[in-house]
Order: sequence, then structure tokens, then C-alpha cells
Amino acid sequence: MSGPVNLADVARRAGVSQATASRALSGHPHVAGTTRERVWEAARALEYVVSPDASGLARGTTGRIAVVVPHLARWWFGAALEGLSEVLREAGRDLLLYRLGDAVSRQAFFDELPTRRRADAVVLLGFGVDERERERLDRIGVGIVAAGTRVGSHPSVSIDEYAAGRQAMDHLVHLGHRRIGMIVAADPEVDLAQPAGRSSAYRAALADAGITPDPALTVTVSWSAEDGARAMGELLGSPDPPTAVYAHSDEIALGAVRTLRRSGLRVPEDVSVIGIDDHPLAATTDLSTVAQPVGEQGDLAGRMVLAGLAGEPVDPVITVPTRLVIRGSSGRPPAPRPANRRP
Amino acid sequence: MSGPVNLADVARRAGVSQATASRALSGHPHVAGTTRERVWEAARALEYVVSPDASGLARGTTGRIAVVVPHLARWWFGAALEGLSEVLREAGRDLLLYRLGDAVSRQAFFDELPTRRRADAVVLLGFGVDERERERLDRIGVGIVAAGTRVGSHPSVSIDEYAAGRQAMDHLVHLGHRRIGMIVAADPEVDLAQPAGRSSAYRAALADAGITPDPALTVTVSWSAEDGARAMGELLGSPDPPTAVYAHSDEIALGAVRTLRRSGLRVPEDVSVIGIDDHPLAATTDLSTVAQPVGEQGDLAGRMVLAGLAGEPVDPVITVPTRLVIRGSSGRPPAPRPANRRP
Repeated sequence: MSGPVNLADVARRAGVSQATASRALSGHPHVAGTTRERVWEAARALEYVVSPDASGLARGTTGRIAVVVPHLARWWFGAALEGLSEVLREAGRDLLLYRLGDAVSRQAFFDELPTRRRADAVVLLGFGVDERERERLDRIGVGIVAAGTRVGSHPSVSIDEYAAGRQAMDHLVHLGHRRIGMIVAADPEVDLAQPAGRSSAYRAALADAGITPDPALTVTVSWSAEDGARAMGELLGSPDPPTAVYAHSDEIALGAVRTLRRSGLRVPEDVSVIGIDDHPLAATTDLSTVAQPVGEQGDLAGRMVLAGLAGEPVDPVITVPTRLVIRGSSGRPPAPRPANRRP
Repeated sequence: MSGPVNLADVARRAGVSQATASRALSGHPHVAGTTRERVWEAARALEYVVSPDASGLARGTTGRIAVVVPHLARWWFGAALEGLSEVLREAGRDLLLYRLGDAVSRQAFFDELPTRRRADAVVLLGFGVDERERERLDRIGVGIVAAGTRVGSHPSVSIDEYAAGRQAMDHLVHLGHRRIGMIVAADPEVDLAQPAGRSSAYRAALADAGITPDPALTVTVSWSAEDGARAMGELLGSPDPPTAVYAHSDEIALGAVRTLRRSGLRVPEDVSVIGIDDHPLAATTDLSTVAQPVGEQGDLAGRMVLAGLAGEPVDPVITVPTRLVIRGSSGRPPAPRPANRRP
């Protein structure tokens, strides 16, 4: 085929009128589902690119930034979005929000993305992508910035997951704990880039302290307080329960604290608990944690996007610092053992 | 002036080229601040309406819904946004997110709104407006739906604030409490529609129980756990502290619980606490509360918007039910007094 693909080509291939093809491609609600699918399939097959909005913007820009998140009801995402939205608003950019919560919506989004030019750039907020999705992103021809995760070689801002994990684990080790449990957060459906650094920090901290890891002391759950409560029950049921628990997030840690209290155990006298985040309710509930600046990650991602659009150089990787916050949920183990570091 | 106002009129009045006027009106970053202001002033003075994007949508629609929120980092807003975004995504609509956190951003948004046709409808999410803003909204010529608050005569979905407050208060009264404190949540800068029903429910429940309200037992703070902690301190400092506290939100209630525990008081043996929301961490922290369906309010607001755009009838007011959830933070008062209802 010669020359650029146009709407007429798509309509012809789909067997519909140009008006129908146009409506289907622009998400108009009054198009039958099957027609819509046929048009999209034709557009994909031809690699058709919908013209950017002709709203008077110079150089074919839309004035909009697309932001993709896997969750909205969880604190991290709202807080990051708040920082990001502020920067974009000040710059006069509009924020298009896409929450892709399951595999179906992810696939639809990544399939349609190259065809619909609705935004000048895309920010992935705490949104890990797989290889196929990354390839799609590499081909859409707009700037991509990741916050909270790294995505291929695209510019990104995040914490150092390993360093954060070490801050939590080293605190427990320094307090004298030898039997330390870990509650791993994972969300395979929507969170393909698990914070692997948080888990490797656990193993490294134990190794540095000469402690052999016990597989019975690691439980993997999803990112919720309810799951943290369940995981703690599992840890308490192990033959030799831990005297301290390192949770991948504060919400999980708070669930663990609940199970401990319901089991008649005192925190931290019987079992210490530490999380990661410094969720606003961590201070309220006196939870020890590793604080990460969340609004700032959104803010920096916004600045990176704007710099990229302005043709300015963009830092490829920004790492924001985390900080150990010692509160009332962590203390010495109940029966102190002598440091086991004899040669 | 005769005939519709066009871009040339705006450019002439602002003393700039049409290309510059266009860039300024569409939020292009490479326009000097003063120029931008002059163009916007001219556009406002002439009541100029930017043409909708010519992206191929039928009937001049944009395919986008604008969603306005006062906060993003607080749970209610993320959860409501999650329900709303799901409905819009399924309908193939894009979601434009505007977080207006202070008076300056509010005014800028409401001033520009009539001039920029960037969305087919506006959803106000937990976003109260003043009279001037409501007038602006009434004139923009797109559908408006409110969720979590009522806004003039526009369609809305929310809880019955008074009924929710009564569920919390009646629970405390039935347990035998006579000295009941209230922590009022207010946020004058961004939340002009305070949940007045939550406060009137307090007074009505006391009146129905024959209890004279003590002004020293009402403290007004903003919507945060830290402020709840501070308010509880104030209540404890009153000459005759309460045996139960009704907080306008769970986050405030959790702050109150913290202050009680730090003061060496037991919850609920010494002081009962109840909130409103059923925040995900309320279950985790064993907090009694009045549950409201938050994602559902976002979902219903989305359906109302879509129905309006499709020309279908829209319910003017939808009220979603709340539900008392009794957990471990509420119990009988420490020194039960006989019911004081003698004639």
C-alpha cells in the first residue's frame, strides 16, 4: 500500500461508512459493539493514526497528558496523582486519567493507544508493563515517563526499593531480632513490576547478619490490610513464629498488627512490625515505617513530561530518598538472645 | 456586536496575532504569562467559546467527561473516582481530571470553563460550589452531575448525611451515653458544602434523648487524622469530658482513638468512638462506623452523565443507603447512669 493510511481506507476495510468509522474510532457511544470492534480491527491492521484534535494547538499537540494507573482507591495512587495534577494544572495542561484495573482493560488500552492520538505524552503511575506493552509504548511516538516504577529505558522517578527494604530490615536486625518474617506484596494482574528490591533487601539483610532465611517466614499476598491480617495468621501458625515482621506496605503492616492484637500478642513487646510508605494513618496508629515522598514522585514525573515536551533534556532516572521512621510498633525481641556473630 | 464572536475578535481585542490567541487559549506552554492573561481576559469579556475539538466526533462532542475534585490523596475521592472511571471507560469516554485544591485554582477553572469546551459534561466529585460558581456552571451549556454533595438543582448522587449521622449518634445513645462529644469536619477553602446534616443529626439525637447539648463538647477541625487527634485532646481538656465521641469521618475518629490511647484511656471501656465512612482501615483498626458505598456513588454519577448525554431521563436525586457497622471501638459508658427519661 502506498501513501499514508486514511479514514477512507479504514472504513473500506471494515465495510462501513466513513462517518461510522469516525464515530467508532472516537469512542462515540452510539455505535454497535460489533461494528466498533470491526473498525478498530481494521484500524489496527492498517496501523491507522487518528488525526490529533484540530483545536487550534500549534504543531498538532493536544494540550493533554494521559496518566495511567492500576488503582485509584489505594492511597499511594491518589497521593501521587495529586502531586502530578498540580504540576500539569499550573502548566495549563489537561490530565486524561486512565485506570486500567484488569487484563482486559489493559489490553484494550495498549491496542488502541497507537491508533488514537489523544495526548501529547503518557505518565505511567505505579504501573508496571510487560514486554509486549512496552513495545507498544515504544511505538506510539509520544513521550513516556514512569513514576513509582521503572519502565524500560523511559525516564522514571521512584524510590530505591532495595534501599527502602534495607532501612526497614536493618532496623529490625539492629533491635536484636533473628526470626524475622516478611509479608510480600504482589498484584500479578495489574502490577507486573513487583518491587523485587523489597524482597532482595530482606534476603541481603539476613545474610549480612548471618541469619539463615526460613522459607516458612515469607508469605506473599496482595496489597491490602485484609491480606496483611491473613498473612500474619499464617506466620503465627508456623512452627517457630517470628519475633518481628517486615511488611512491604503500611496497609499490610496494619493488617498484621490487627491479627497480632486479636491473638492476644502485644506490639512491640511480643512481636515488632514495620511497613513501608508512611501512609497518613501510620502516624495515627503509631506504626514504624520507611517513609517515601509520594506526592513528590508525581510532581517530578509531571516536570519530566513538561521538560520533554519543551525539548529540554530530561534526567533518565530520578531516585527520591526514603527515610526510616521509628514509632511504637518496633522494639527489642521478647527474649533477647546474645548477638550470634562469633567467628 | 453582531454575529458570533470568533478568534479574530479575541485576538484583535487582546492585541495579538490569531496564532498567539489560539495558543494562549489552548494552554500551549510557549506563551508569555502576560500575553496569556491578556488573551483570556479578552475571551472572557467577549464570552468567546473555543470550538470543540474537530476530532471526527458527531455533533461536536469531545468524547470526554471532566471530573472536578477538591482532593485526591484522601480515600473517599480515590474510591469514588475508581467507580466513576470504570463506567466511563466501559462507555468509551475519556476522563479529564481537574483537582482544584485552593481558591486560586477554583477561580481560574470556573472563569475559563465557559470559554473552553473541552468536555461534554462535568462531574463534581465531593466538590461543593458557592453561588457564583454555580451560576458559572449553569451557563456552560454542558450537563453537570454531582456526587457526594448536592449542587443546586443538578442531578446528584449522595448519602443522606442526616440519616448517617443519626445511625452513629443513636448507636451511642442506645449504649447509654449521655455525655457525647462531636468532632465536626470542615474544610472551608475547598469544601463549601459542609455535611451540615452530620451536625444537625447530633443535635436532633441529643434532643430526642432529652440531653442538653454542651457547646464544650463540639470541636471543629479539618478532615484529617492529625486534626482528629488534636480535637480529642481538646475534648479531654474540657471540665467534664465525654464518655463517647462521634466523629464526622473515620480518619478523624482514628486520630481521636490515638489521643485516647496516649492518654492512658481504654477504647471503648473508658471512651467510645464512632466515625463515618467505613474507610478500608476502619475494619483493620476495629473502628465502629457508618458505612457509605463510595465507589457506587462514582459509578452512579457516571451512569447519570451517560444517560444525560444519550438524551435519556436522569433521576434528579439519588440517595445511596448507609449502614451502621458496630466494631470494637464502641461500648457501654464506664459508669452506667439510669436512663434519664422521667417526665
